[in-house]
Amino acid sequence: MSDKLSSPADLLKATTSRRKFLRTGTFAALAAGVACKSEEARAAANPQTPSGQTGGTMGPHDTSVGASALSSADAMDAMHEKAMKAFPAKTAVHGNQLLKPRIVDNVKVFELTTKKIQWETEPGKFVEAWAYNDQVPGPQIRVREGDRVRVILHNQLPESTAVHFHGLELPNAMDGVTFITQPPVKPGQSFTYEFTVPNAGSHMYHSHHNSAKQVGLGLLGAFIVEPKAKGQHDDPDIDEVLILNDGAHGYTFNGKSFPATVPIVAKLGQKLRIRFMNEGMMIHPMHLHGMHMTVIAKDGWPLSAPWKCDTLNVAPGERWDVIVNCNNPGTWAFHCHILPHAESEHGMFGMVTALVVQK
Amino acid sequence: MSDKLSSPADLLKATTSRRKFLRTGTFAALAAGVACKSEEARAAANPQTPSGQTGGTMGPHDTSVGASALSSADAMDAMHEKAMKAFPAKTAVHGNQLLKPRIVDNVKVFELTTKKIQWETEPGKFVEAWAYNDQVPGPQIRVREGDRVRVILHNQLPESTAVHFHGLELPNAMDGVTFITQPPVKPGQSFTYEFTVPNAGSHMYHSHHNSAKQVGLGLLGAFIVEPKAKGQHDDPDIDEVLILNDGAHGYTFNGKSFPATVPIVAKLGQKLRIRFMNEGMMIHPMHLHGMHMTVIAKDGWPLSAPWKCDTLNVAPGERWDVIVNCNNPGTWAFHCHILPHAESEHGMFGMVTALVVQK
Amino acid sequence: MSDKLSSPADLLKATTSRRKFLRTGTFAALAAGVACKSEEARAAANPQTPSGQTGGTMGPHDTSVGASALSSADAMDAMHEKAMKAFPAKTAVHGNQLLKPRIVDNVKVFELTTKKIQWETEPGKFVEAWAYNDQVPGPQIRVREGDRVRVILHNQLPESTAVHFHGLELPNAMDGVTFITQPPVKPGQSFTYEFTVPNAGSHMYHSHHNSAKQVGLGLLGAFIVEPKAKGQHDDPDIDEVLILNDGAHGYTFNGKSFPATVPIVAKLGQKLRIRFMNEGMMIHPMHLHGMHMTVIAKDGWPLSAPWKCDTLNVAPGERWDVIVNCNNPGTWAFHCHILPHAESEHGMFGMVTALVVQK
Repeated sequence: MSDKLSSPADLLKATTSRRKFLRTGTFAALAAGVACKSEEARAAANPQTPSGQTGGTMGPHDTSVGASALSSADAMDAMHEKAMKAFPAKTAVHGNQLLKPRIVDNVKVFELTTKKIQWETEPGKFVEAWAYNDQVPGPQIRVREGDRVRVILHNQLPESTAVHFHGLELPNAMDGVTFITQPPVKPGQSFTYEFTVPNAGSHMYHSHHNSAKQVGLGLLGAFIVEPKAKGQHDDPDIDEVLILNDGAHGYTFNGKSFPATVPIVAKLGQKLRIRFMNEGMMIHPMHLHGMHMTVIAKDGWPLSAPWKCDTLNVAPGERWDVIVNCNNPGTWAFHCHILPHAESEHGMFGMVTALVVQK
Repeated sequence: MSDKLSSPADLLKATTSRRKFLRTGTFAALAAGVACKSEEARAAANPQTPSGQTGGTMGPHDTSVGASALSSADAMDAMHEKAMKAFPAKTAVHGNQLLKPRIVDNVKVFELTTKKIQWETEPGKFVEAWAYNDQVPGPQIRVREGDRVRVILHNQLPESTAVHFHGLELPNAMDGVTFITQPPVKPGQSFTYEFTVPNAGSHMYHSHHNSAKQVGLGLLGAFIVEPKAKGQHDDPDIDEVLILNDGAHGYTFNGKSFPATVPIVAKLGQKLRIRFMNEGMMIHPMHLHGMHMTVIAKDGWPLSAPWKCDTLNVAPGERWDVIVNCNNPGTWAFHCHILPHAESEHGMFGMVTALVVQK
Repeated sequence: MSDKLSSPADLLKATTSRRKFLRTGTFAALAAGVACKSEEARAAANPQTPSGQTGGTMGPHDTSVGASALSSADAMDAMHEKAMKAFPAKTAVHGNQLLKPRIVDNVKVFELTTKKIQWETEPGKFVEAWAYNDQVPGPQIRVREGDRVRVILHNQLPESTAVHFHGLELPNAMDGVTFITQPPVKPGQSFTYEFTVPNAGSHMYHSHHNSAKQVGLGLLGAFIVEPKAKGQHDDPDIDEVLILNDGAHGYTFNGKSFPATVPIVAKLGQKLRIRFMNEGMMIHPMHLHGMHMTVIAKDGWPLSAPWKCDTLNVAPGERWDVIVNCNNPGTWAFHCHILPHAESEHGMFGMVTALVVQK
């Protein structure tokens, strides 16, 4: 479960590697603390020191190359380096924060308030967002199969809205589709959904009224249902949600664009579960460097024949759960492999983050 | 098998729920007859009547919301409601009508005539179509593995054409690719294909000459081959073909855009098979609300390890067969999850239909 | 393994069907030698000779069709025929040539030199390419699991670059991501990667610096790793790599657009393995006519539950391995099923090739 938005007090006493990493604050520091313990990485990072047969070695320079080619390459590289060194960049607020329910008569009560806000996707870049509880993605709802749940929606938007629980097999009246299962919830109104959670898995909630606009502007979040009977993969060391989006806010992971995306930090040997969710309009084939992913569930349903990959195509509305055995130390690029979603002449941007495996 | 285009006489004496539903003619009537039997749905449909703990409840109104926001929300909601209430809207002719063969010397003979027509994709919206037998999609051909089949093509288009049987493993001369396996069939000419049906499954037929244009304009249809030896899923209660398209005719299911798309109507407990086919240029991740789909075949080939999902990504040229156990009563949205293919500020349109599960 | 770029001497003494086919040089010759042995194909190819019940038959002409429709159809058909007859068209140089390593102290040493070149994608159409060893795709690297490999990169481009080994689970310092695992390799510099090959399968190498541009311009190639312990599918009769691309060079297979794409030629009964790799920005659902494909591996990882299809959706960064049992004689279209990637009003172009199964 994500812990990245615990209280400051929590953060101060925290000892997990993730928290430590977030405090160090720059990719460079990260690399210094992790990857550069490796002989090979040191050699690569310092071209003046050939490393022999075991690592990357920068060779001698061909002096026939013109000075102008070199200086234009230097200028481009400086931009790329600047983008990379800014990672992970700080922004004011993160989305997908775990939402603690109130417990009322054995019912887990969640309140969601929709509002128009300014959202910082990367340092200094603010976009108009329509948000649940002032976050994009909205807060993470996490419950257990069989739980009784109440979700109270307060609509403070200038448009009507409604909440669809994408993937949950609810009674029809709770399905959140305006003019099919309920009237629209007008500006200023509230609406209460209540149900017993029917099926486990990685699900989502989002607007189902004027949805191309409303979901595009941020009315979306993760709805995770833990199974009653735990399976083989239900107690990973790290459990991450990665919501892909490509709407009005640009190319984002959990509402942030590189370098403001948040790296996943694991210790060597840990078991990582990633829950991919696509809330955008395009496919995003997610490529992890250095280790493969074992695909274990589709839309919350376990696969009887899991399969391995390093590039997983995630289409709009889909959820895919994967396991990564973090057995390869270092800082690994992790990005959409539609390259124009991840890199431009100015360096990496958009759908890029990293998996850091610390020795 | 689809029965929606039986003769009027058939329709009058019909007793199946599907036919009844189609006669009722509006989504509102449908909802009244089905979903509103549920206490929860009634509560949701009438915001003045709080329903206690069991259903959706509209809360009191926050009077601080400005009148102008509310009136603009009302105006948008009225458009959305109008679109929804129009469903299922009547249009003159439907495609994918089952084509009965003539039997000649133990050969099933099908005749396909290509022609330029005007096609009504939604009420009052006519587009130019190039059609087989005046329908988009063309008539459904449904045969059995091992059948001897003759397809006689009559070309009344201003361009040459040819028919490719997409997915059938035919002798090369029957493959329908101009200048590889046959000459083009000129305007005014006819051409006869004949073969023994080699492999079962959900297949398609379409033009393979100037195909980007000709298939885009409607020269396509379903070619279903029932297996010799019936499998577990070959006698579902309902067997539907859903051809996705996104060409010159807009975003369509079986040649129609919402609200002129046709809902699938099932009785509680029935087993539904859906055969998705993509004849367009884009992926369409199909999302079913309320129940999951079990994926049982790809391109007509049974999967040894079926898997479950609620959102199935269908790429151009692909066919996917799924089973839905209709165990959740109500009217369920069923749409492409690339939201701009399904909803605009004016309400739902394009790639939207419903699965109605009647108690 | 591709043998299409053996020496001319080799070609002269060659007896394989592939080489013979390449010498015949035109699709028409191919069809004459192969498909037309079949009675059905002969009938189809010659509309004046009705073939009875066993093949395609052109019927009598409807004289009511206007002469102008017919002459405009003839004009379009002539363009389509011309495109088809040009296949397989000769172009100066092919990519994906097998790169023989030098063996130095038991290490397989490969040298890759990046350079800006003019690349012929179809006869007479030259585009600017950024190439490894003057080829697009770059030369095929083919090694064995556990091999010690050294790749020396010489950068003669006007930009910095670096090589990422996509799919290989290398030590971090060998991962080729500038400013994460190594500094950029400047114009005129060289850089040495060295590693023990960790995992088998169909992988790729490509630039990971300014990659949207550099990979788009051609800095990509296949990196095939044969497994230590051979599996059921590791000794096919034919082993092909098909790299899909859609960047600045148009829609290409292995760097060539139809009619300059290279057909795959098999003898009846042979076992063909195809390794699809997508280095572009779009999905490409690859459709094979006449025979199905059995999908056996994803991103180099064998599937525990292989599945069959005739249309395989390949997303950017993905690799899929399939087996085709070449049991259906003839010349079979093989193309991307996003039809605008394969055919225009001027005939087939772009992502089209053929599988020729010779009796």
